[in-house]
Amino acid sequence: MAKGYRVAIMGATGAVGAQFIKILEERNFPIIEVKLLASQRSAGKKIIFEGKEHPVEVLTHQSFKGIDLVLSSAGAARSKEFLPSAVKAGAVCVDNSSAFRMDRDVPLVVPEVNSEAISLHKGIIANPNCSTIQMVVALYPLHNVSKIERIVVSTYQSVSGAGQKKVLELASQAKKIASRPDAFGVGKHKVEKSDINEFPYQIAYNLIPHIDVFLENSYTKEEMKMVLEARKIMGDESIAITATCVRVPVFYAHAESVNIQTRDKITAEEARRILGDAPGVKLIDEPSRNGYPMPLNDGEGTDAVFVGRIREDESIENGLNLWIVSDNLRKGAALNAIQIAESLYGISCD
Amino acid sequence: MAKGYRVAIMGATGAVGAQFIKILEERNFPIIEVKLLASQRSAGKKIIFEGKEHPVEVLTHQSFKGIDLVLSSAGAARSKEFLPSAVKAGAVCVDNSSAFRMDRDVPLVVPEVNSEAISLHKGIIANPNCSTIQMVVALYPLHNVSKIERIVVSTYQSVSGAGQKKVLELASQAKKIASRPDAFGVGKHKVEKSDINEFPYQIAYNLIPHIDVFLENSYTKEEMKMVLEARKIMGDESIAITATCVRVPVFYAHAESVNIQTRDKITAEEARRILGDAPGVKLIDEPSRNGYPMPLNDGEGTDAVFVGRIREDESIENGLNLWIVSDNLRKGAALNAIQIAESLYGISCD
Repeated sequence: MAKGYRVAIMGATGAVGAQFIKILEERNFPIIEVKLLASQRSAGKKIIFEGKEHPVEVLTHQSFKGIDLVLSSAGAARSKEFLPSAVKAGAVCVDNSSAFRMDRDVPLVVPEVNSEAISLHKGIIANPNCSTIQMVVALYPLHNVSKIERIVVSTYQSVSGAGQKKVLELASQAKKIASRPDAFGVGKHKVEKSDINEFPYQIAYNLIPHIDVFLENSYTKEEMKMVLEARKIMGDESIAITATCVRVPVFYAHAESVNIQTRDKITAEEARRILGDAPGVKLIDEPSRNGYPMPLNDGEGTDAVFVGRIREDESIENGLNLWIVSDNLRKGAALNAIQIAESLYGISCD
Repeated sequence: MAKGYRVAIMGATGAVGAQFIKILEERNFPIIEVKLLASQRSAGKKIIFEGKEHPVEVLTHQSFKGIDLVLSSAGAARSKEFLPSAVKAGAVCVDNSSAFRMDRDVPLVVPEVNSEAISLHKGIIANPNCSTIQMVVALYPLHNVSKIERIVVSTYQSVSGAGQKKVLELASQAKKIASRPDAFGVGKHKVEKSDINEFPYQIAYNLIPHIDVFLENSYTKEEMKMVLEARKIMGDESIAITATCVRVPVFYAHAESVNIQTRDKITAEEARRILGDAPGVKLIDEPSRNGYPMPLNDGEGTDAVFVGRIREDESIENGLNLWIVSDNLRKGAALNAIQIAESLYGISCD
């Protein structure tokens, strides 16, 4: 039995890449070799891992020799191009991009929901989209009690979900506006066009109802990911889902307002009991003491999927409203991928 | 026939009060006397109206002698205390507070929806809650084509909806954070407890799923206002409505993600045609050129209710998703109240 694994990180210099490194360290993932891969642009950079400096190497088809595990977050195009070479070299790949998620042959896994699918892999295991992961962690325990018939979800997604450059753009727009004495006045908190480079419009003090590209049906790809991926992970193609995805001026952690309709009644009290015991979920639901989850206070930098504001929906017979918050770079990306690897190798990190 | 009206503004120094003054000027509302009323705290302040300085007077039960119209936005307690005196003195009151909205005897009016209710008033006409107004302006034209059976709404509400002090708190928190060189880092954009005075938690870079007080059923009063007021304005108690209301770090204009189910099918194309011609609505719905409404770019400081992201909801037979944006201080408060007065007096300001 190996004492540890040879791990390659694709996209090591990105926002999720940084979280891969941080979380592998935090959890003492058994590693005997780490290989940090990125594009030519990042070649020569150095990254500290477990106290030692590691060079960033340029990603090539030859990068995977001797590698056991690839943690990949370098975008769908690079995953499509390079992961087949990694598989050929004998590695197992946990891919954070959308490249393979809907492939029949590729398990799409959230360990709290469908860890049993991991063993069916043929070299690639897909990590779902951030907004999907936190939703299914919170909803699957309810689905197990009474089938979820329909989901209506509206998201409040932080800028870090779009990458490190977007994080810096929000910070830089906010900084420019803050230097004005009357930034709070009507019409006084717009930045110049030259300060808008990453998002299609200013994100500071704004809401942009547009994440990923628009599709033929007027939904965005992000919205359809939530529909299609949630069904695949929960193993139930009959769940009716509709989503509206919105970018908000928050740095880290996504929030979701979720309305569900179940086959049989689940009371708010039952839902609180079920979710209070559910794996990966942390319940914060005490209105009387202003107890509800928030991105800044709860989600940012933590591991759980936080659920609160659980209310029986009085507009239908078997409905519930929930408010779900989780760190999109951690449980929504790097942490979930590493949990997949832990499950694959039978590593317990509790 | 009078050449104009004697108008008293209650809460003249507040966020909505300032908008009353601005919009009365913009629309050349026929005024022969204006009386600016506020609490003892603001006594002695001066406010410019139509180029002339007016003193702010302390609100008393004697303030309404000779007044034709009271525009009131001084909170529910003051409305309850003082508006009966105004009515007794012969004034008609348009009240922006929640004090009288659900009274059987008080019309609750959005002129684009139920202007016919205005004539039933007995001295007080209630102005609905900001988030309700923009929702019904957008939904009523669809309801007229095919009855709306159910509404699931999640809001994204700006800080100005909670008053001018909240606006300043967001600005001051953001300013403090902006002075840090690494404000964008995980855990680096929290302010001190002493900088949190208006909202229960930090609002800069955060989301607070809590507007107005919590009720017995775990909903907030804001959420139940959307349910009860929308039914009363649309004149249909059978519409099933469920709401989740969230405060977001935006200064002005609220947004809403709204899912509706209608009795008969309305296609997205039909909805665009209906809303393209609807009173008070401005359609911005061209995904191919990133056309959708946003608070900063469209809502802030303008009069329309903006609608976009219209999509057929594929999860049910007769469903639609919409994204609705409007200035909560204007159409959501002061403008709607002034439009009620215009309708009452048969004034056309177009």
